[in-house]
Amino acid sequence: MLHGILHYAHYLLESTIEKNETVIDATCGNGQDTLFLSNVVGKNGHVLAFDIQEQAIQTTRQLMQENQKQNVSIIHDSHEHLEKYLPTKEMLVGGAVFNLGYLPRSDKTIITNANSTIMAINKILHFLKPNGLIVIVVYYGHEGGHEEKEAVLKHVMQLSQRSYHVLQYRFINQRNNPPFIIAIEKKGNGFTKRKLSF
Amino acid sequence: MLHGILHYAHYLLESTIEKNETVIDATCGNGQDTLFLSNVVGKNGHVLAFDIQEQAIQTTRQLMQENQKQNVSIIHDSHEHLEKYLPTKEMLVGGAVFNLGYLPRSDKTIITNANSTIMAINKILHFLKPNGLIVIVVYYGHEGGHEEKEAVLKHVMQLSQRSYHVLQYRFINQRNNPPFIIAIEKKGNGFTKRKLSF
Repeated sequence: MLHGILHYAHYLLESTIEKNETVIDATCGNGQDTLFLSNVVGKNGHVLAFDIQEQAIQTTRQLMQENQKQNVSIIHDSHEHLEKYLPTKEMLVGGAVFNLGYLPRSDKTIITNANSTIMAINKILHFLKPNGLIVIVVYYGHEGGHEEKEAVLKHVMQLSQRSYHVLQYRFINQRNNPPFIIAIEKKGNGFTKRKLSF
Repeated sequence: MLHGILHYAHYLLESTIEKNETVIDATCGNGQDTLFLSNVVGKNGHVLAFDIQEQAIQTTRQLMQENQKQNVSIIHDSHEHLEKYLPTKEMLVGGAVFNLGYLPRSDKTIITNANSTIMAINKILHFLKPNGLIVIVVYYGHEGGHEEKEAVLKHVMQLSQRSYHVLQYRFINQRNNPPFIIAIEKKGNGFTKRKLSF
């Protein structure tokens, strides 16, 4: 049976992230992916959960409290500044997830932005462990969504095939701009660490 | 880790086809998928393997002999006539695979054709079991390949989302027209059998 989008995103993350790793929820939103990642890395792992919206921060904090999660840092800042929050500059990140678009049941004019998304992707690729994945769920039905989608696609399509596999997973017979997945895998063999350019 | 194209095609088929079922290799080519399907359905299952090229038929026949496979019918005819070879008109097919393009190490001018591919897809959708899959691996770098790709994509994109999930799985940062997968899942719940229109 074909995995739906959300199920496939979790399947990919679960298949590559290991216990005790540090991972990133670049857009914590309602906190569901944060909670999922918290379970995957276990109590000695660490989730860095970013959002620019106060409402997302509060919702995620409450969800973590309800689930007694101690391994999550909830960070009210843009994911483009993520390196400020990593304990060391040499650490490896086990994986990351993005949900592009707006916060459900919230102000639809506050949306993720292609420039900061691309900057955060590049930074995470630098810290990502070999064979690690960045999973990006792209919602684009809202105003400004198509522009972000096109800019992000253009960026990831030019990532070197020597260093990365970039997969698109999408249902192509659905109406109303259904979300799709971009998954970026950092190759493990013979990979030269990407030069940090920020 | 992300599945490569061939690995993912087999993963999908294996996850939905069950022992003892009848399945279809619509383009047997060098016989590798035929052999794979033969193993998946087991000795009481049945594989119908089609090809229009004599060379493909011979290669596949030899591979089946070498592997002592008794559960394969190798059929030198176009997949668009597949209903002629089904034991009954009421039977259910467990799954099907297509490899679109030309036979490797062979005459590149003999290629699969969009019209017969689409006709065969429609016929298999009629006989496919609920929750069954048609997996199509699309090679399109050869002359005529782009036209077939576009025609097949256009066709599957208009399949009703009430009756089918149509997935595209493709690597988007690779050069030289890499193959991609289209997977069509026939929905299982509340599905009305598709009217046969051939």
